Amino acid sequence: MHHLHREKLFSLFDDNQSGVVFIQGAETMYRYQTDYEFPFRQESNFWYLTGANETDCSLILDLKKEEYHLFVPKRDAQYAVWHGYVKTKEQYQEQYKPDHLHYQNDILSVLNKLKPEVVYCLNDEQAEFIEDLDRGFNVETDALADALTYCRVLKTEWELDQMREACRVNNLAYEAVMKAIKPGMYEYELKAIFNKVQIENGLLQDAYNGIFASGVNASILHYVENTYKINDGDLFLMDAGFECNGYAADYTRTFPANGKFTEIQAGIYQSVLNAHTEVIESIRPGVKMEDLHLMASRIMMGGLKKLGIIKGEIDDIMEQNIFALFFPHGLGHFLGLDTHDVGGYPKGVDRIDRPGIKFLRARRELQPGMVITIEPGIYFVPAVLEPAMEDPEQSKFLNVEKVKDLLTFGGIRIEDNIAVTEDGFENLTNVPKEIDEIEALMAG
Amino acid sequence: MHHLHREKLFSLFDDNQSGVVFIQGAETMYRYQTDYEFPFRQESNFWYLTGANETDCSLILDLKKEEYHLFVPKRDAQYAVWHGYVKTKEQYQEQYKPDHLHYQNDILSVLNKLKPEVVYCLNDEQAEFIEDLDRGFNVETDALADALTYCRVLKTEWELDQMREACRVNNLAYEAVMKAIKPGMYEYELKAIFNKVQIENGLLQDAYNGIFASGVNASILHYVENTYKINDGDLFLMDAGFECNGYAADYTRTFPANGKFTEIQAGIYQSVLNAHTEVIESIRPGVKMEDLHLMASRIMMGGLKKLGIIKGEIDDIMEQNIFALFFPHGLGHFLGLDTHDVGGYPKGVDRIDRPGIKFLRARRELQPGMVITIEPGIYFVPAVLEPAMEDPEQSKFLNVEKVKDLLTFGGIRIEDNIAVTEDGFENLTNVPKEIDEIEALMAG
Repeated sequence: MHHLHREKLFSLFDDNQSGVVFIQGAETMYRYQTDYEFPFRQESNFWYLTGANETDCSLILDLKKEEYHLFVPKRDAQYAVWHGYVKTKEQYQEQYKPDHLHYQNDILSVLNKLKPEVVYCLNDEQAEFIEDLDRGFNVETDALADALTYCRVLKTEWELDQMREACRVNNLAYEAVMKAIKPGMYEYELKAIFNKVQIENGLLQDAYNGIFASGVNASILHYVENTYKINDGDLFLMDAGFECNGYAADYTRTFPANGKFTEIQAGIYQSVLNAHTEVIESIRPGVKMEDLHLMASRIMMGGLKKLGIIKGEIDDIMEQNIFALFFPHGLGHFLGLDTHDVGGYPKGVDRIDRPGIKFLRARRELQPGMVITIEPGIYFVPAVLEPAMEDPEQSKFLNVEKVKDLLTFGGIRIEDNIAVTEDGFENLTNVPKEIDEIEALMAG
Repeated sequence: MHHLHREKLFSLFDDNQSGVVFIQGAETMYRYQTDYEFPFRQESNFWYLTGANETDCSLILDLKKEEYHLFVPKRDAQYAVWHGYVKTKEQYQEQYKPDHLHYQNDILSVLNKLKPEVVYCLNDEQAEFIEDLDRGFNVETDALADALTYCRVLKTEWELDQMREACRVNNLAYEAVMKAIKPGMYEYELKAIFNKVQIENGLLQDAYNGIFASGVNASILHYVENTYKINDGDLFLMDAGFECNGYAADYTRTFPANGKFTEIQAGIYQSVLNAHTEVIESIRPGVKMEDLHLMASRIMMGGLKKLGIIKGEIDDIMEQNIFALFFPHGLGHFLGLDTHDVGGYPKGVDRIDRPGIKFLRARRELQPGMVITIEPGIYFVPAVLEPAMEDPEQSKFLNVEKVKDLLTFGGIRIEDNIAVTEDGFENLTNVPKEIDEIEALMAG
């Protein structure tokens, strides 16, 4: 189906220009100066255009003829001993169906034949590779990344199917963890179960380094140690997902390790869930991510006020950015071949210089075919709240005694993956999130 | 226990020289131009000397005073929001117990105070970092890597304990897979089980990208796809391991997917096992790895001759390197903080006279404290055997009809981890390998 992606890219360039696109695929990555090899994962743009999960390939797209040249490595006998087989040109042709297939050392001769007025490259490094072949080529490094971003933001039905499959397996993995967790286990034991469900379903590549955080660790937004013992009474925050054919799933759930929310846990959880649910229900083409961010923030602040954790008028709380003390990250981001996918900030749109919302990774009007995460959260981060309690402008909105009591509470985040449709949205995530549903599942 | 490693390194340098060792620890690695973070794993030499599994650190060892300076990053408030906490200097001091603790930006001022005649660096990149601080420093990039290699080759008791623990968990993981495998499963389902046992036992870092190969895939020495369906009658070759505190386990077992070896599978398996067992039993200080390699080869060739797969005099078969057609890789390698650990291939013998340093070169001769893998194997690799069958000098040793029949056989490898002791060896691996033991385990 990757030919559809090439057609989409061709359609963005003028028909009558004699330019070409050049992209190098990824090489094997090693750790430091050792022979420890990271599992190969193709670079996302190259993958998008070719579907070739092979090391050491390149492509040229002839924009005038709309033709696809694939360049593959010529392997020697030594390679055959270690890798057992060397694909013939015919096998590569059959598998990837380019208009023209070449070995890697033919890039210069193909370029010389095509005589492009301009070679569009992804970045300076790849542009230098072309210039090193021949200084006569005119390279350009802005337009291609912009064009590919434009293409990748709006998913095709085939791409949505890959994301549905990644989510189907992610649903299973989340439920397996929620059923298995018990106080006294170590965080990594849940990671073990989560990964097992993914891998046994054929998803071999994680989409990101997952977070498995119990208790106070859940207030560390980027917690990846996963080595603590889970206590009775802890909440457990899990933020993890794997890829299907390169397309990521990325959920978060927060649930009580012993299967039963306490009153304060339920109160704060419900504040986050209300924001999560109301935001998702308002998703449709034309809505702006920053408006959703503020909407989620306002709902969560209403919840914290009801619980007596903050005080004052909600309008003032919002205006004074008190929400960012508890919700210091963005509401969500684009999702696709990268977990933090391309396209969050179209050219000319800058980040909003305001606490909390400046970390928003996507700022544009939603359109059908976009896939986003919606992940509001409330956290009690001492490094954020302790200075705020000392600041008279902020502390007047805080019930300091209650906030102090909650400094070891941790945090709660609830994250679903949402595809924007013509008239609303499709929620790709299907893991219990209502309090009674979670408790029923965990009671098993 | 890492102070023992520093003491060992200090002991290799002249007491009266005013040199220092400088090493930068690892930074977080990202995939291509994305924010996909690889799980952090400290660089092995830095880890060996400090035990600090933290990003963005450096060390200086003052060779004259035998003092340890640790440099840690100074984190800002932004870091606190995402990572939840910022360690104080006191916390770093308490955790790693250096003689002197500094922030990273103090490297130049510490060096200026120490005024070393020479700064020993691991590689050109780190040497350039020092030269960029001040061109006046005299840097040297050979001696340190050699000295660290010398230290790392001979394991302390604490290091052996880490390897014993990695092996204890690896034993469990291998047995779990051998009990679970059934024809019709996919290769990755066994990887899922293997990884789960490792991770739930707290080993979160794989030592290398594991091989889970069924049938003919086992003849691909470097098979990492792990996506095939396992057929009834297939052998399954599994080569995988995780790290404990940085120290690797690295085994291979080959077993029948349906629990029962066929006659030809048993015959070839026994040839490999005989080599494996006899080699291990002859391990003791003073033995050379290259002699063991030839010994294993000779035993395996005897086996293949008995099975009628090759023919001729064993002396001729060895002399003509026919063994390499079936056993194209090395018998084993050093094992430690890297899976293919340092020290296997010593540099020239003249290094002993290097000014300022008095360490002996690492030797291929085995010494107490070395840990090695012993992994003989027999493979039917078409890319190797097809040309051999066309070559009259080689084909005269081959029973061509039998070899042709076996071109889809795959391969067999049996690998244990062995610590060399004062009077022999300690086998760290404890997973069934005799045919009857394997069949009994798999019969449940």
